Order: sequence, then structure tokens, then C-alpha cells
Amino acid sequence: MTDAAPLAFEFDRATALHATAEDRWSFEVDAGFTVGGKPNGGYLVAVAARAAEAALVAAGTEHRHPLASTTHFLAAPDAGPAEVQVTVLRAGRSASQVRTAIAQDGRLQVEATFTMGTLPDDGEPASWSAVPPPPTAAIADCTRLPARREGAPFEVAIMDRADVRLDPDTLGFAVGAPSGRGELRGWVSFGDGRPADPAGLLFFLDCLPPATFDIGRSGWVPTLSLTTYLRAVPAPGPLLVRQRALVVHAGRVDEVCELWDRAGRLVGQATQLAGIRFEDDTALAPHPA
Amino acid sequence: MTDAAPLAFEFDRATALHATAEDRWSFEVDAGFTVGGKPNGGYLVAVAARAAEAALVAAGTEHRHPLASTTHFLAAPDAGPAEVQVTVLRAGRSASQVRTAIAQDGRLQVEATFTMGTLPDDGEPASWSAVPPPPTAAIADCTRLPARREGAPFEVAIMDRADVRLDPDTLGFAVGAPSGRGELRGWVSFGDGRPADPAGLLFFLDCLPPATFDIGRSGWVPTLSLTTYLRAVPAPGPLLVRQRALVVHAGRVDEVCELWDRAGRLVGQATQLAGIRFEDDTALAPHPA
Repeated sequence: MTDAAPLAFEFDRATALHATAEDRWSFEVDAGFTVGGKPNGGYLVAVAARAAEAALVAAGTEHRHPLASTTHFLAAPDAGPAEVQVTVLRAGRSASQVRTAIAQDGRLQVEATFTMGTLPDDGEPASWSAVPPPPTAAIADCTRLPARREGAPFEVAIMDRADVRLDPDTLGFAVGAPSGRGELRGWVSFGDGRPADPAGLLFFLDCLPPATFDIGRSGWVPTLSLTTYLRAVPAPGPLLVRQRALVVHAGRVDEVCELWDRAGRLVGQATQLAGIRFEDDTALAPHPA
Repeated sequence: MTDAAPLAFEFDRATALHATAEDRWSFEVDAGFTVGGKPNGGYLVAVAARAAEAALVAAGTEHRHPLASTTHFLAAPDAGPAEVQVTVLRAGRSASQVRTAIAQDGRLQVEATFTMGTLPDDGEPASWSAVPPPPTAAIADCTRLPARREGAPFEVAIMDRADVRLDPDTLGFAVGAPSGRGELRGWVSFGDGRPADPAGLLFFLDCLPPATFDIGRSGWVPTLSLTTYLRAVPAPGPLLVRQRALVVHAGRVDEVCELWDRAGRLVGQATQLAGIRFEDDTALAPHPA
């Protein structure tokens, strides 16, 4: 990540790190990985995970994959130069724990902690699963989400980076008819053909619109806390993605996002707690029991 | 928490803090809140949350409730003296972020980060929910889990502190007949009659046996990372609890725990990633599709 070879893909350029001290890397918050001008949360988690990996490689461990991460968003960095500082809390045998801090102009913006280890890369199915991939329309029958839409209050630039195609069954929100299930479903891949990998999964786990779009009219929701688990290195090809809202209460919503690879394995999971404000005149579509 | 009045309930004594510096509190890891001699994770999260609250009160904010927490377990403290150190990352308007570190003999054991704020305490139902309380046997028809059981490899002391009663429908594991659903369901309250409150919810969210008991024979699973969301101050009375395993893959399992109060509101949610090793001769009961 710190060598001089040109990087072929947008995501690799946008997450490239430059070592500035033993525990510190600089990077550029990329304007292409933003929503309404603010960097996407999953993109920042991916940058922090790369720094965690670099610090652990320097410490002599083999723990290159972010098995678990949790990120607290204190403030949104602007596009431009930023830095990430890494504290290795424990370099262990089967897993290591790392804390990372993203700062801009010396001000802490994002704190992310990781359990790092090694993901299975053998293509084997899970030993046991209660969450098979949900029935979803074929990619050719899904609709790609645009970055710019007439009448939209802002640009969702990440939709030029992530190729997100939603099942028409979950697109009711686009015509003012949310289903009330609080669920979006579809396929995701990189728009420029970059293969998915563990760092890419971190971005994909936070790149869908809020599942609350399928309940009532709201804006994009500001994430308070985002947790991800990765379970396996994904097989090549687009990933099936499902994003669900579980409970809306007192101005907060929790959402769950899951990714399955072409082999049908659950490879990534995320949960987040976010603020939510529906438009005043919005009646929430009730969940179809 | 730092005054000298005698504390009536076990949980309050076990989580009592004594200020030793502006950002530091001492406490006693209580032998009653352990599993096989190692402190229960949710209990340690509750101790850390109390320290986070104390630090924010001192900083002049009104943010007393742990809306979201994530804890990474580096090592298990022993019963006895320990300390918790608090760093306020950001004291905000609607929420604050706090990092806490539990150490023993100067060695970092547990790091927990919190988003603190104010939970609704008005008894109002959620605006929208996709997770109603699941059908569960009446408490009188459920079976209390014991702390000591003949032939058990160790004592589960927390079962003297938490009164956990499981629905007979999910008790197959006790007679060697797991259902394969990977789900435990029942009721939880404090054994000594202490009312549930936000700190208590943090303990309850991690006090059930592993849901993997309902899949195959394994030990208690070591938690790598535990995330909790609290959604409301619970109404008085026992809480309905459901703990589910989602995927077992490559020696790791993720589990989800949910708590509903007597008013049927989802008041607490947790997800954890843990290590898992089934006994060699165990065939996993397949999930009943």
C-alpha cells in the first residue's frame, strides 16, 4: 500500500496509506466515497482496517483480516488530507486487538477498534447457518442506484464507486410506496470491476441506502456506532446484500446488513445504531406482521 | 455509587466504583459474577458503563445511559481488585463518546467504547418494529438454570445472580437433543429482586448459555467482541430473552441476544463474535430450514 506502483482501482487509491511514523499513516479522504459530501462510514472503516493490518504486519503477526470492528463516529472528516494512528492493544496467538483513530487537522474524528485474525479462504461452506441467502431477483432484473437523481437534495457519490442493484420488490420507496418490511435487497460489486476482498466487504457493509426508506420518508441516517463481522474471504463475483431495519424508537434505528458470496456463504455482517428523523407528514408503513 | 450507604443488591455491590483519580475508579471483580471462575463479559461492560457515566456527569453532561457499547476482551481479569480508566472522546449535544479500559495489576484486560445519551423512560411503544416478542412459555412453565450441576466441568456462578428460566421448547440440549434452531428463549431477572435498569440490561444481554448448545455439544464460548444497544428504560418485571446463533464457520460463531420488557418493547440488543469448538464426536444438528 505504500509502494509507488500505480493503483488500478478507485478503492485502492482511496484507501492508500503513506507511513509518516511507526504508528501513523496519512491518507486522502476521497471525494468519490462520500454521501452528501460526507465520507461513507464503511469506507473510513476500510482505511482504518488497512492501517491496523500494516501495524500488525510490522509487529510480526499474521493477523491481516478484520474479523470484528466497531467504529464510533465523532465527527465527519472533509475530503482531503487526514491521518490514522494505530495502537496495538494486544498481539495474540489466534487474534490481535487494535485501536485506530482517524484525525483531521489534529482533531479526532473517528475511533475504530478491531479484532484482527485470519479468515478462511478455502471456499468451504459454513459448518452451520441459520441465515441462508434470501430469494432475490437476478442481477439483470435489478435496478442500479444512481449517484445523482433529479430532485435529490444531494449527491450520493458512492453509487459511482459501488454498483448497487436493488431487487424491484424492495424499490417501492422510489415511487413513494414503501413496503413496510424495512428491507432492501440486491447485489453489490465495485463499479470499476475491482474484485471484492475483506477490505471491500467493509465498504459494502455500509453502502446501501437506509433500510428505513422502506418504512417512511427520511434522509440518510447519521451512524452513531457501526459494528462489522467478516466470516470468510469472498468468492469472486457480485455479492448478495440485504439491509434491514429492526426497531425505530425515540429517534434512533438499528439496522442489520448481510453479504453472501456467489457460493451462498455469509461472508460479512454489520449492525449499526443511527439517528433517524422522518419527515413530519410521514406516516410509517406498518410492518406486515 | 461512591457514597457510603450500604447497597442492598448484589449487582450494585459488584459494580460499585471508588474514585481514585479524576479519570480513574477502582472496583472489585466479584466472584459471584463469573463463569468457570472468569468474570462474565456483560458484568464487566456494566462496570465500564458506570465509570463512563460517572466521567460524563463530572464533565457536566446529561448523558447517563449507554446507548451503544462495544467491548473487546483481551484477557480475563481474576476476582479481586481492578481499575477502570475513562477517556471522554467527545462530550456532545445529543450523545457523547467515551472509551474505557479495565486493567488489573497494571495490565489492560478489557477495552470498551460507549456512545452515551438518554434513553426514553416514558413507557411509550416503539414507532416501528420488525421484532415483536417471540411466543414463549409462561415463567411458571420454564426451568431455572442452576449454577451447579452434577457432572458439569465448572460452576456457572452468574446463575445465582441472574434468575434465568428457559422455555422447555429450547431445553433439548440438557437431555442431549438440541433442536438445531440455535435458539434459547426464556425469562431473566435478578435473583435477589433488584429491579432491571439500563446497567442491568448490559449484564442480562450476556448471561445466557451459548445458543450453540442448541446445535451441538460445546463449552461456553470465549467472546472476542461484544456489542450492545439499549433502546428504552425497561418497565418493571422480568424480561423476555432470546439468544440465537446465526453462523458457525471456521471456529467462530456470531450470536444475537434480545430483551423485551413486560410492555413488549425491545429494550436491549446484543451481538457477539466468539470462538467455538464442538466436541470431536459431535454432529451438528442441522437447522430446520
